[in-house]
Amino acid sequence: MSDTPLTHVDDHGRARMVDVTSKMVTQRRALARCVVRASDAALKCLHDDEDIVPFSRAAGMVAAARAPELVPLCHPLPLDDVNIHVHIGEAYVSISAETSVVARTGIEIEALTACGITALNLLMVLLPHDPTACIDTLALWRKSGGRSGTWRRQQSTSGGAVGVGRADT
Amino acid sequence: MSDTPLTHVDDHGRARMVDVTSKMVTQRRALARCVVRASDAALKCLHDDEDIVPFSRAAGMVAAARAPELVPLCHPLPLDDVNIHVHIGEAYVSISAETSVVARTGIEIEALTACGITALNLLMVLLPHDPTACIDTLALWRKSGGRSGTWRRQQSTSGGAVGVGRADT
Amino acid sequence: MSDTPLTHVDDHGRARMVDVTSKMVTQRRALARCVVRASDAALKCLHDDEDIVPFSRAAGMVAAARAPELVPLCHPLPLDDVNIHVHIGEAYVSISAETSVVARTGIEIEALTACGITALNLLMVLLPHDPTACIDTLALWRKSGGRSGTWRRQQSTSGGAVGVGRADT
Amino acid sequence: MSDTPLTHVDDHGRARMVDVTSKMVTQRRALARCVVRASDAALKCLHDDEDIVPFSRAAGMVAAARAPELVPLCHPLPLDDVNIHVHIGEAYVSISAETSVVARTGIEIEALTACGITALNLLMVLLPHDPTACIDTLALWRKSGGRSGTWRRQQSTSGGAVGVGRADT
Amino acid sequence: MSDTPLTHVDDHGRARMVDVTSKMVTQRRALARCVVRASDAALKCLHDDEDIVPFSRAAGMVAAARAPELVPLCHPLPLDDVNIHVHIGEAYVSISAETSVVARTGIEIEALTACGITALNLLMVLLPHDPTACIDTLALWRKSGGRSGTWRRQQSTSGGAVGVGRADT
Amino acid sequence: MSDTPLTHVDDHGRARMVDVTSKMVTQRRALARCVVRASDAALKCLHDDEDIVPFSRAAGMVAAARAPELVPLCHPLPLDDVNIHVHIGEAYVSISAETSVVARTGIEIEALTACGITALNLLMVLLPHDPTACIDTLALWRKSGGRSGTWRRQQSTSGGAVGVGRADT
Repeated sequence: MSDTPLTHVDDHGRARMVDVTSKMVTQRRALARCVVRASDAALKCLHDDEDIVPFSRAAGMVAAARAPELVPLCHPLPLDDVNIHVHIGEAYVSISAETSVVARTGIEIEALTACGITALNLLMVLLPHDPTACIDTLALWRKSGGRSGTWRRQQSTSGGAVGVGRADT
Repeated sequence: MSDTPLTHVDDHGRARMVDVTSKMVTQRRALARCVVRASDAALKCLHDDEDIVPFSRAAGMVAAARAPELVPLCHPLPLDDVNIHVHIGEAYVSISAETSVVARTGIEIEALTACGITALNLLMVLLPHDPTACIDTLALWRKSGGRSGTWRRQQSTSGGAVGVGRADT
Repeated sequence: MSDTPLTHVDDHGRARMVDVTSKMVTQRRALARCVVRASDAALKCLHDDEDIVPFSRAAGMVAAARAPELVPLCHPLPLDDVNIHVHIGEAYVSISAETSVVARTGIEIEALTACGITALNLLMVLLPHDPTACIDTLALWRKSGGRSGTWRRQQSTSGGAVGVGRADT
Repeated sequence: MSDTPLTHVDDHGRARMVDVTSKMVTQRRALARCVVRASDAALKCLHDDEDIVPFSRAAGMVAAARAPELVPLCHPLPLDDVNIHVHIGEAYVSISAETSVVARTGIEIEALTACGITALNLLMVLLPHDPTACIDTLALWRKSGGRSGTWRRQQSTSGGAVGVGRADT
Repeated sequence: MSDTPLTHVDDHGRARMVDVTSKMVTQRRALARCVVRASDAALKCLHDDEDIVPFSRAAGMVAAARAPELVPLCHPLPLDDVNIHVHIGEAYVSISAETSVVARTGIEIEALTACGITALNLLMVLLPHDPTACIDTLALWRKSGGRSGTWRRQQSTSGGAVGVGRADT
Repeated sequence: MSDTPLTHVDDHGRARMVDVTSKMVTQRRALARCVVRASDAALKCLHDDEDIVPFSRAAGMVAAARAPELVPLCHPLPLDDVNIHVHIGEAYVSISAETSVVARTGIEIEALTACGITALNLLMVLLPHDPTACIDTLALWRKSGGRSGTWRRQQSTSGGAVGVGRADT
């Protein structure tokens, strides 16, 4: 038995939403990133298109608002801002999503959801051209607000962060 | 301008759903996989828990049925089966999702959605313990049915497949 | 350890959707019922109203179509028919919901969801007038189609069925 | 015509959302409970399983956040906390759901929805083993906050409360 | 290239949610209206019915709460009030929807969504009786709150406002 | 009392889904159109943008798949195709949506929903530039399949059809 139980588990080992009733209402922001990898030929098809990228960002933006339906332990929050950027590079597509809210708890999951679902939409149109296409390194890059203050991902962190640093945030 | 336009784009460069009206109704299956990476300490917390994994699989299963809400170009289909497996290893968590349907088009996106959203739920409980935790290599591993027959991912395929091969399918 | 494992659990004790790929497509119907109990005064208020009942049935009808979002192990199906009846009696409100589909699996859950959510909508408007109001005996009453044929609930069955028999189906 | 019109009906007899714009923002909590009844054999199957209960709680937790989609007159609120407990007894399963928010109106419906949908998920896995299984006594047990203060259900209240008192809150 | 870029587009021409983090929390209200036109015979059928109108208003009320899922650039907000009125006239049906919230941004889209979806539900039941039935003049009629204060639509405004002025607000 | 009751109302005057169980499975198509009117200045802003139109079509496409959640009497169907076209003219924006399915019932509502929600997304970005902008003439233009065969809207039909004929279908 571990000495450090999960924050999202109660004393009886049951998954629980973290009660944020007593936390302060402050401004909170989060930034998430990921990449979509595919063959050069498939990425070239995507690059020449003007429609799929805004299409995918629309889907990612809706997904941010619906994060609590996809992740039961995530609190429903009235998001103040969601912005998603997509950069089609030569070797991969970089996606970043930023979220902002004035609330009792953070919105990391909303940023990760927006980023991941945008990537999933791009993956769908790449798959007929390269079935080995994949989503990589979906991770948090920055969060601010609340008691714990600002946190930033280090470039050298394990988990694939290196190489994603050039995304068009 | 590329010579090979995207399947999901029409002659005027507009994103479109692929019309499957004339395709045959056959049995179609898909398998998707990904991993969630986190520190040893965070993974150990997760391992000792009995509740978070089924919790996360429930969320992934619902997400499979809602794939067309998350990915607008994806066809709504009456899924016959969705199964999600999670294996908590020492270095990462492996997730696989299999989907099955008798329909006019494939269900790769449903499998990828189920897999990715299960991973997102696990990521959420890992983040307070390791903010560098991330989702990696969300990709298709097998699909069958329809005109194009069966396709399998090769271990040596670029895109990060190597190292995910031990997932508990 | 029980000798009869749950149908919805696999060999490793994991919740699973039942794979219906190999089942026959037949016409399937289901009927669910429940009651909402409240004080005479509260029920009298409801009786004089013409608006709340269709309002509540609309909500129940939508819920039937969304059963797979509320019950992850439930298969998404293209429902052919959902009908909900509400009868405001002197001692309680009776609600019945019938569903019909031509599919590989049954629609009992859709009928139970439609019935329960209609009841929840009625409960909401009764609560300000009687906070002890409650939903009782939400159960299946009839199902037909598929390999197991037709099943009907017996009046004398334990579980509260007696007394619900007069609902206006 | 009754002298006491429903709170949720306007002067013209139309269902309406209650305007809470002028109410005070205070902390509000609610507790709902219900039971699922089934045969001894079916309950024994459920008892031996470790997966279905967290699975069902995940579904109930999502449903709490979606209560306004299921109950049109319910206000959308940023829930601070939802917790669901399930106790598998010898004669029935007891389910309780607690909700918390800092808002202009109460969250009784969210607690009732969470409780009822968790029960519906358990009912689904019991039905193949006992088609007479049913949900009973879904009711409010406690609410606090707002102008009306704290209310508690009495054990002796009609509506089936007796016998549910031993739920594991 | 226009000198006045769209408010909902950033410097790089990308659709964006407007960041409202720094806006003041004030009470905001909105009123939207539209009409549904159909043949006399079809409207007469609708007039004699007591059930379809509350049914349609229930659907419109749910849609208001879900506006951010339908309109990605719309902020999710905890609505304090939504009220929908329907008046079946001799030449057309008039629909009005009012919304209210205490928040950082307006709720015009919620009012327009509630109004439009109520109309769509009425259109559905009219179509089998008159396939030429249509929804007309879905527009904002009043908004208040926030920095820009109160705005009212002028009767003589182009865009079809004339003739809708008799709706039963 | 009218001699011709509504198709969607049963013998007791209750709104009902039409039971399509006994209808034939055939290919069915539908085409819906509407316009969005706004000032020249507002339309010019929209015309110069490349992002909002695909953004809005993505939202309309998702809405088609969710029509049964917005219109309770609408049957959930596995859509084979949804395509949405937007043409920004000098005096108004024309929107058309086509849907296709092989099923027991038609998909007119899905086409109307896709068309109307795309329009609502365009309206949202026009409103800050012209609060009098409005959606007009949302109507069915063609349907085919099923017992009743093909129906086409006549240009001279009352209800505003004239002037929409130049949409880019």
